[in-house]
Amino acid sequence: MSIVVMGTVALDTIKTPHGFKKNMLGGSASHFAVSARLFTPVHLAAVIGEDFPEKHITFLKRKGVDLASLTTVKGTTFRWEGEYRCDDLNTACTLKTSLGVISSAIPRLDTHQRNIKHVFLANYDPDVQQEFLKLFKNPQLVGMDTMNLWINTKLSAVKRLLKKVDILIVNDTEAKDLTHELNLLKAARCLESYGPKMVIIKKGEHGGIFYSKRFIFAMPAYPLEIIIDPTGAGDTFAGAVMGYLVKSSHINASVLTRAISYAIILSSFNVEDFGLTKTAALTLKEVHQRMKIFRRFFLF
Amino acid sequence: MSIVVMGTVALDTIKTPHGFKKNMLGGSASHFAVSARLFTPVHLAAVIGEDFPEKHITFLKRKGVDLASLTTVKGTTFRWEGEYRCDDLNTACTLKTSLGVISSAIPRLDTHQRNIKHVFLANYDPDVQQEFLKLFKNPQLVGMDTMNLWINTKLSAVKRLLKKVDILIVNDTEAKDLTHELNLLKAARCLESYGPKMVIIKKGEHGGIFYSKRFIFAMPAYPLEIIIDPTGAGDTFAGAVMGYLVKSSHINASVLTRAISYAIILSSFNVEDFGLTKTAALTLKEVHQRMKIFRRFFLF
Repeated sequence: MSIVVMGTVALDTIKTPHGFKKNMLGGSASHFAVSARLFTPVHLAAVIGEDFPEKHITFLKRKGVDLASLTTVKGTTFRWEGEYRCDDLNTACTLKTSLGVISSAIPRLDTHQRNIKHVFLANYDPDVQQEFLKLFKNPQLVGMDTMNLWINTKLSAVKRLLKKVDILIVNDTEAKDLTHELNLLKAARCLESYGPKMVIIKKGEHGGIFYSKRFIFAMPAYPLEIIIDPTGAGDTFAGAVMGYLVKSSHINASVLTRAISYAIILSSFNVEDFGLTKTAALTLKEVHQRMKIFRRFFLF
Repeated sequence: MSIVVMGTVALDTIKTPHGFKKNMLGGSASHFAVSARLFTPVHLAAVIGEDFPEKHITFLKRKGVDLASLTTVKGTTFRWEGEYRCDDLNTACTLKTSLGVISSAIPRLDTHQRNIKHVFLANYDPDVQQEFLKLFKNPQLVGMDTMNLWINTKLSAVKRLLKKVDILIVNDTEAKDLTHELNLLKAARCLESYGPKMVIIKKGEHGGIFYSKRFIFAMPAYPLEIIIDPTGAGDTFAGAVMGYLVKSSHINASVLTRAISYAIILSSFNVEDFGLTKTAALTLKEVHQRMKIFRRFFLF
């Protein structure tokens, strides 16, 4: 049992009311992997440039992430510069995006990984996501994320891909943009009709909702007084959901609520420091300590 | 065991994407009472004008609400006209407010009710709230609400009153305006430092958070696809919290989570129809059916 995550491995430069950090290890696949590895072995598929620091490779390996499908190509690594302002820590203002190698090279899958049954397609060009998915012989549980850029420019490709996935994990604005529904439950129902059996809508500081034909639920976020850097919280959330589902032998209502409660807890840790600092150092023991507090919210 | 609620009894005219209703029974005290009566006897203190329809009196009486402190004075009843737009059902646009009798007359307390131990001061001029509270011989559990109008115009009176109350129940924008804190947990901590031992911040469709020195928790709203009229959801919430606490012999973490889960459920019913239509017809049996579904959200 293991999962392949396809996404970005990036160098993030981030400014928040709490500080400024340059060229940190970031990207959807990195955040996903560092979260999911607490539950299941993770194989990471992404492209990086020749300038990618060796220390980040060492770091991911030390976290147990399999990098057989991490490909170095000629050019520079994807870089993202963003800022969060104190009046809205839920929304990143992108200052600069340098696509570098991800504008031409696409993630490949090591041949030994073609039999893996679990895949997460992190936010990427939906055509690339679809091609990547085709590399698997018999995928059993496929999750995906997307973003407004693709919803606005490649909607039909996004919808085509939705037919092939089991779980869609998006945030509230993406769900609304994909469906033109303002009510999130209506949006989720509409998204489910596009293909995925399970739809998770992330609401940042307000938690998330889960939708399937048989079962619907909402969960609050873990309340925090200090949020240092929200970057990667959504990928951390997805990593915990998928990691926990892969670890579980079957999927039912109770497994799903547990998966999402882990996602809530993991992402609460993620935002408490810059980049991967907090989640990288995290053990399941610490996760369970916070989970114990979270559980007490629902004593009724 | 019973509770006195002091607030408004109004005639509401409301436009939402789902329809238009004229001169419905509304007001903070009405919504509070119709919710709280499911848990404990309620005494309502408010002023109405000579134009107040007899049928609304009959209705409140039939719901078991004690109207000994409902005073009819010369003039017209407080009227509110509001609109909700489909892109933001969380926020009411006030079209017209006619204060009528509440601009001069203040709610009085029947002498037989001076020994009652539980009081809720719904949104009102904070000086009137304070004077009303003084009428009680030995109040044991005092809750209050307020609104931006008073925060902006009578902040020192609001803060003076906060020293005398046990539970503050406000919405997120009120909490932020009262404290100048953007983070709701920081806002709640700050509000607690003003006096109330317990602070509840309502977040509309995103649920609510509870704060006390010993215990903090968050709860999601009950997810709904169709919201007909959100008017009074906050007062319905407060009614359930206070009603349940009064009913309980003591207050601890588990009683508080139960009180707030009832508040979430009651307000979810409230918004499913205009005015008091849904909550007035509600039985505890229906509440418990929805509660059973809500509980399943937290199986983890």
